[in-house]
Amino acid sequence: MRHLILVRHGESEWNKLNLFTGWTDVDLTEAGIREAYEAGKLLKKEGFAPQICYTSYLKRAVKTLNQILDAMNMDYLPVEKSWRLNEKSYGAIQGLNKTETAAKYGDDQVLLWRRSFDVRPPALPMDDPRSPRQDPRYAALSDAEIPLTEALKDTIERLMPYYRGTILPALEQYHDVLVVAHGNSLRGIVKELKGMSNEEIIKFNIPTAVPYIFEFDDSQKLLRDYMLGDPEVIAAKMQSVANQAKKK
Amino acid sequence: MRHLILVRHGESEWNKLNLFTGWTDVDLTEAGIREAYEAGKLLKKEGFAPQICYTSYLKRAVKTLNQILDAMNMDYLPVEKSWRLNEKSYGAIQGLNKTETAAKYGDDQVLLWRRSFDVRPPALPMDDPRSPRQDPRYAALSDAEIPLTEALKDTIERLMPYYRGTILPALEQYHDVLVVAHGNSLRGIVKELKGMSNEEIIKFNIPTAVPYIFEFDDSQKLLRDYMLGDPEVIAAKMQSVANQAKKK
Repeated sequence: MRHLILVRHGESEWNKLNLFTGWTDVDLTEAGIREAYEAGKLLKKEGFAPQICYTSYLKRAVKTLNQILDAMNMDYLPVEKSWRLNEKSYGAIQGLNKTETAAKYGDDQVLLWRRSFDVRPPALPMDDPRSPRQDPRYAALSDAEIPLTEALKDTIERLMPYYRGTILPALEQYHDVLVVAHGNSLRGIVKELKGMSNEEIIKFNIPTAVPYIFEFDDSQKLLRDYMLGDPEVIAAKMQSVANQAKKK
Repeated sequence: MRHLILVRHGESEWNKLNLFTGWTDVDLTEAGIREAYEAGKLLKKEGFAPQICYTSYLKRAVKTLNQILDAMNMDYLPVEKSWRLNEKSYGAIQGLNKTETAAKYGDDQVLLWRRSFDVRPPALPMDDPRSPRQDPRYAALSDAEIPLTEALKDTIERLMPYYRGTILPALEQYHDVLVVAHGNSLRGIVKELKGMSNEEIIKFNIPTAVPYIFEFDDSQKLLRDYMLGDPEVIAAKMQSVANQAKKK
């Protein structure tokens, strides 16, 4: 039996402040650190033993992973970081308040930017201080690879080479593989694994810091998928994420 | 200009309890976490920008590195972990109280185990629960590579292939390279870089969580080395490490 374990990072400072985050590198809150550590304790209690870990270039995901490894006493595990696992870019609305943005552009428009499959928010100019082109961590990316804004479709497209070229092959070599990333990059993996339609995946809300287990047999056939933890807590977390999209 | 930045992990739980630690995977204390974060703030303030990081398989080093990267807002940096950067193995005296051990074996014997270049403490049996052979993280090591006890000489010997094969080549590719490890594995690197004798290196005490900078020109010629921070604080930390060896 093999397991791909997906974990969405814990609560971030900008979740709390109700700002569009995307590629902005904001920190976890104290609550986010705690729920990440709890996820690690749960994985350990249930006997999971990842052999390799993948995460994004963003602090909230890296630190969620660090908390999980600390809780499991597996700080020594190899970790590979990739920009392809980053959150969806929200382009020029990154850093804006969600309520104010809805007041300015209208609720329907903002809902499209947040929850449609292929509508992009306005793009950042390449030379905007918020543009990834201005951030040395993305120096190795070509201009064509730098996302100045993304729809979920774009996020999934830039994720797929990494998922197919790195994460899936790791599952042939290792029995447990851990991926700690973001709501929308993880949607790409879930969509692919469960063969979901575009409409299904945009309605599917991944709760924060809940280990989401995909169980395979040794020939990589998916047997089942389930979330670890108290079903009531998980349902409440999924509802909370769903409500964010409606918040005014 | 290129920089190799060495940092010894912050205070650990067993430093505080006065126990022989070696390969035992003990955690940082709160003070250890704080001094690690301070080291990161200092590196950032002084304009260092590592492009790759190396650390050991031990939690106290990994977590010191995580704190440094957090303080620098460089959580995204690639990190490579190797057992070859682990602390010197103290063999069968790991987990024993330093004072009690001195009472049992005599001060002179314990001082030899701690501070001689080539005298080894008694070895762990291969099947001892404390033996690295019993720990899944070292499963890929051959029996010959598993250290059941080490003198500083042995620690340096198993470190060197990693230093010469991985860390030094990284300095050709990157301008700033960060290594977070342990008192004795870092001694190996310092001895090599400064051409110290066996006698010189055993007397050289590396303070905890102080960035120790080796500055090279672009043809890898060592120009100078210095420690970052308040000279009085550094001197006090070096004295504190030196005193540990004398503690009864």
